[in-house]
Amino acid sequence: MSGAVYLVGAGPGAADLLTLRAARLLAEADVVLHDALVSADILALAPQARLYSVGKRANRPSVDQRLICRMLVRLAARHRVVVRLKGGDPSLFGRATEEIDACRAAGVPVVIVPGVSAGFAAAASLGASLTSRGVSRSVAFVTPSVSRGGAESPNWAQAAAAAETAVIYMGASHAKRVHESLLALNVSRRRPVAIVENASAPDERILRGVLDDLPVLAAQLDDGPALIIVGEVAAAAEVLAPAAVSVA
Amino acid sequence: MSGAVYLVGAGPGAADLLTLRAARLLAEADVVLHDALVSADILALAPQARLYSVGKRANRPSVDQRLICRMLVRLAARHRVVVRLKGGDPSLFGRATEEIDACRAAGVPVVIVPGVSAGFAAAASLGASLTSRGVSRSVAFVTPSVSRGGAESPNWAQAAAAAETAVIYMGASHAKRVHESLLALNVSRRRPVAIVENASAPDERILRGVLDDLPVLAAQLDDGPALIIVGEVAAAAEVLAPAAVSVA
Repeated sequence: MSGAVYLVGAGPGAADLLTLRAARLLAEADVVLHDALVSADILALAPQARLYSVGKRANRPSVDQRLICRMLVRLAARHRVVVRLKGGDPSLFGRATEEIDACRAAGVPVVIVPGVSAGFAAAASLGASLTSRGVSRSVAFVTPSVSRGGAESPNWAQAAAAAETAVIYMGASHAKRVHESLLALNVSRRRPVAIVENASAPDERILRGVLDDLPVLAAQLDDGPALIIVGEVAAAAEVLAPAAVSVA
Repeated sequence: MSGAVYLVGAGPGAADLLTLRAARLLAEADVVLHDALVSADILALAPQARLYSVGKRANRPSVDQRLICRMLVRLAARHRVVVRLKGGDPSLFGRATEEIDACRAAGVPVVIVPGVSAGFAAAASLGASLTSRGVSRSVAFVTPSVSRGGAESPNWAQAAAAAETAVIYMGASHAKRVHESLLALNVSRRRPVAIVENASAPDERILRGVLDDLPVLAAQLDDGPALIIVGEVAAAAEVLAPAAVSVA
């Protein structure tokens, strides 16, 4: 009577940006292991399941990744549907590789259910397309490395500088280093920048400026997860709809 | 009695990879303008709506983009909920900018509803994470430009070469040029490559090899939309779950 592990994308925050497949799996789950950022509204879709909060916020204590992997394997031996619920999409900055490898090594089947990554919710909130004919045919999704430093420009920065639009995850708390790394690669100080905090959630905030404003803008953020979007599309963005128009 | 235009991501293909918000908007839509790639299963979620098929497949005739923009504005004057349904996410290679601009110019409110882009469904099908601690902190989503050529290496190729993982949209029919452009930027001939055709759909196919195999692999594809994934994560991928394990 052993089951499978489902690595499920919880989407950017708003409960109705979950996929239909994710909602169905939550309704059928025996156990749900979820990140700290997954909202109560989403967890309410699995009232029958046993819930484990296992994660992870920057700069805060969290459950060790190896322990999560062991838990998944152990729970799959006793339950049919083990859901590992991750913010956004599991394949983008979700530490999915470790969990996939641990399950495979133990002979536990793994299924990935993709989700809406926060970068797309941020673009939607800005009212901007990440790509635009004649303006941007390339988008880089990067996260600043925390370990490396020194004279060499890190790969994440090179990838961000090479693309016409860069979406920087988990970068707001490293805004000064992001700013310096991009300037060192000759990205213009006047390049448009937008920061979206808590994308798609009720407390979403949008800050705008240019690359040189980035450290000052980031200092105004609260404690929520924030995305930095760098590129002409950040300037094209404007508040879209009158406040009276909400999603039906 | 004028309404709003909702640019809605239809997800990668499978109907249950639609978001809950997209499904609700389809159920409330007065009119739906949809791409050619949106399946009948998804359109069945809007039985009450008038449907317009407006396009677009590579190398086939499609409705002119300006006509689509005019239709959106005109329909929003007569209907409350006008849904513009786009494959994947509207902000990634979805020509959203033209439609946003046209609506704004006409004073029509626009709301973007993000969706699961095909690249994430392809990664899920491969059983691979697009990022991986120590292997990839950067992912580039690019599409080869069709207009430019010549000696200069195009920006999309530079962005793809700079990132640790590249996801190339609408590139399979230009496989020879993609291959040449990446080699010209010193990407290794032995770099792992995977092609996912019809990601998340029943007729999904996965082809694997290295960069030098790309033209030969692409020649084996059928006529479906295909994504090329270049990078170490393409090699890490293996068939995940036994066939007996389907999503619950």
